Amino acid sequence: MSKIVFGVDVGGTTVKLGVFTIEGVLTDKWEIPTRREEGGKYILPDVADSIKAKCEEAGYAKEDIAGVGVGVPGPVMENGVIQFADNLGWGETDISGVLGGLLDVPVKAVNDANVAALGEMCQGGAQGFSDVVAVTLGTGVGGGVIIGGKLLAGSIGSAGEIGHLNVEPTEEESCNCGLKGCMEQYASATGVVRLAKRRLAKDDTPSILRDTELSAKSVWDAVKAGDAVAIEVAEKFGYYLARGLSFVAAVVNPEVFVIGGGVSKAGEILIDYLKPYFDRFSYPGTRNVQFRLAKLGNDAGIYGAAGLVIGSNQ
Amino acid sequence: MSKIVFGVDVGGTTVKLGVFTIEGVLTDKWEIPTRREEGGKYILPDVADSIKAKCEEAGYAKEDIAGVGVGVPGPVMENGVIQFADNLGWGETDISGVLGGLLDVPVKAVNDANVAALGEMCQGGAQGFSDVVAVTLGTGVGGGVIIGGKLLAGSIGSAGEIGHLNVEPTEEESCNCGLKGCMEQYASATGVVRLAKRRLAKDDTPSILRDTELSAKSVWDAVKAGDAVAIEVAEKFGYYLARGLSFVAAVVNPEVFVIGGGVSKAGEILIDYLKPYFDRFSYPGTRNVQFRLAKLGNDAGIYGAAGLVIGSNQ
Repeated sequence: MSKIVFGVDVGGTTVKLGVFTIEGVLTDKWEIPTRREEGGKYILPDVADSIKAKCEEAGYAKEDIAGVGVGVPGPVMENGVIQFADNLGWGETDISGVLGGLLDVPVKAVNDANVAALGEMCQGGAQGFSDVVAVTLGTGVGGGVIIGGKLLAGSIGSAGEIGHLNVEPTEEESCNCGLKGCMEQYASATGVVRLAKRRLAKDDTPSILRDTELSAKSVWDAVKAGDAVAIEVAEKFGYYLARGLSFVAAVVNPEVFVIGGGVSKAGEILIDYLKPYFDRFSYPGTRNVQFRLAKLGNDAGIYGAAGLVIGSNQ
Repeated sequence: MSKIVFGVDVGGTTVKLGVFTIEGVLTDKWEIPTRREEGGKYILPDVADSIKAKCEEAGYAKEDIAGVGVGVPGPVMENGVIQFADNLGWGETDISGVLGGLLDVPVKAVNDANVAALGEMCQGGAQGFSDVVAVTLGTGVGGGVIIGGKLLAGSIGSAGEIGHLNVEPTEEESCNCGLKGCMEQYASATGVVRLAKRRLAKDDTPSILRDTELSAKSVWDAVKAGDAVAIEVAEKFGYYLARGLSFVAAVVNPEVFVIGGGVSKAGEILIDYLKPYFDRFSYPGTRNVQFRLAKLGNDAGIYGAAGLVIGSNQ
């Protein structure tokens, strides 16, 4: 039979897994819970067990597996070792070594925002481009930088940590990382809710949002309904996300930003609020960049993780 | 005879030229004026004439020349075409094509801040590193990004345009580029003078600077002499340069920043004012970066330009 590839996306709550043909076609996908207890020591063995069970169920022999690609939330170095992953309880962990040892097949590991970037370039919103920055607006904000078709890891795996770009020097509340004024405090799903709460507390202007459970979705729905307060929040969101992306553009001058994650489900309207501020903060020589929405949704991670293996087999 | 290489650094006032052995040893250097009149149309012919005259004088045959590397102030694409160079009066110009045609030898062209970065990596303050960002604090602020030993050009040659990172959203004066709040407005030689003038105008606090002709040098000399007003200016300088470099670190996570240009002649004290703010604005995963002073001074450009040719002959 033709070879297969496993794509694994390790998140703080669930691990997503997928089986792909060597040509990159997704043929099966499922999830298992992420067991973070005891320093996350069960996570990689759980992944190995799940892959072995799938092989048994589907009749894949070890020789059929070209490799396993893994995305994890933290800075992964070129050798597949992660420095730490706070959301998994991990300290330094040799992902390729441990998982490769359990499965006896080649394992490649990369930061989760980076694999999502790779997924979008291979089969999503950035198809046809090779200088790509993927921006994931989820619970936090992550970034993946691709130059000439290759992921940029950085000297200790921290390239693309754009959620912590300081976009507001006067911020007084702290980000989860301890800094103040990180892009993640405004442009993530929790950031949008925070901006909305702040605006609502400022005065008594009537707004749909006062009778709604606040979420990134409810805020953007209110923007689409023409709610003036929600529109102010969207302007702030656009302002801060644009500031951060203008910094990214000045450093790497990409062809395209691909915007994904839960917040991006708002659709093209998000780009309408982003683009004018981007032009305001960006040097003319970097304004050529295009803005696209991500296409693979929650599957970007497993697509990109599989792409790590497929790319190296071409 | 062993092959030689010409390194050319085209600036707004002078063109610097150097002859190098193929091993990268500088054996001769000189300058010619930059004739910017009539859209800068004499600049490349002047460079060609000067190289031909040097060959005649020193007895180099065309066959002895491995190539000519050129640094120019503007965004150069991978094919050696520059989009525009305001300081030279140029619109789109095919540098490799024009100069290569005049000399009948291979010509490689790259942005000037990028060649300076390459020079510092090959033979200067960043020797031994391969993930390097060179920061040039001159009349303006330029940047050169090197990843895995290779210069990053960007999709239209604008990677590393870090002088125009927006580090102060509340700025009301415009940068030369038309934006407001660019790093160049605070961290360049003219930026340091501007910060000093602003501070002096604020109140009547006594300061050596009130009786001195203001320049980046006189400000830093006053800092070293313990002048309280000058120290306030140095803090502002450190604050803004650190903000900008924290953005660069979040995107590419380099091993080292190499700081050059006229302002860097102040020496290590500059890093003392920079580092605390850098840590304040930077995500923990990117604080591993080192800070070094550039070593090649005004010769970084010709070293790096020659390095463009030498690197491709190895």
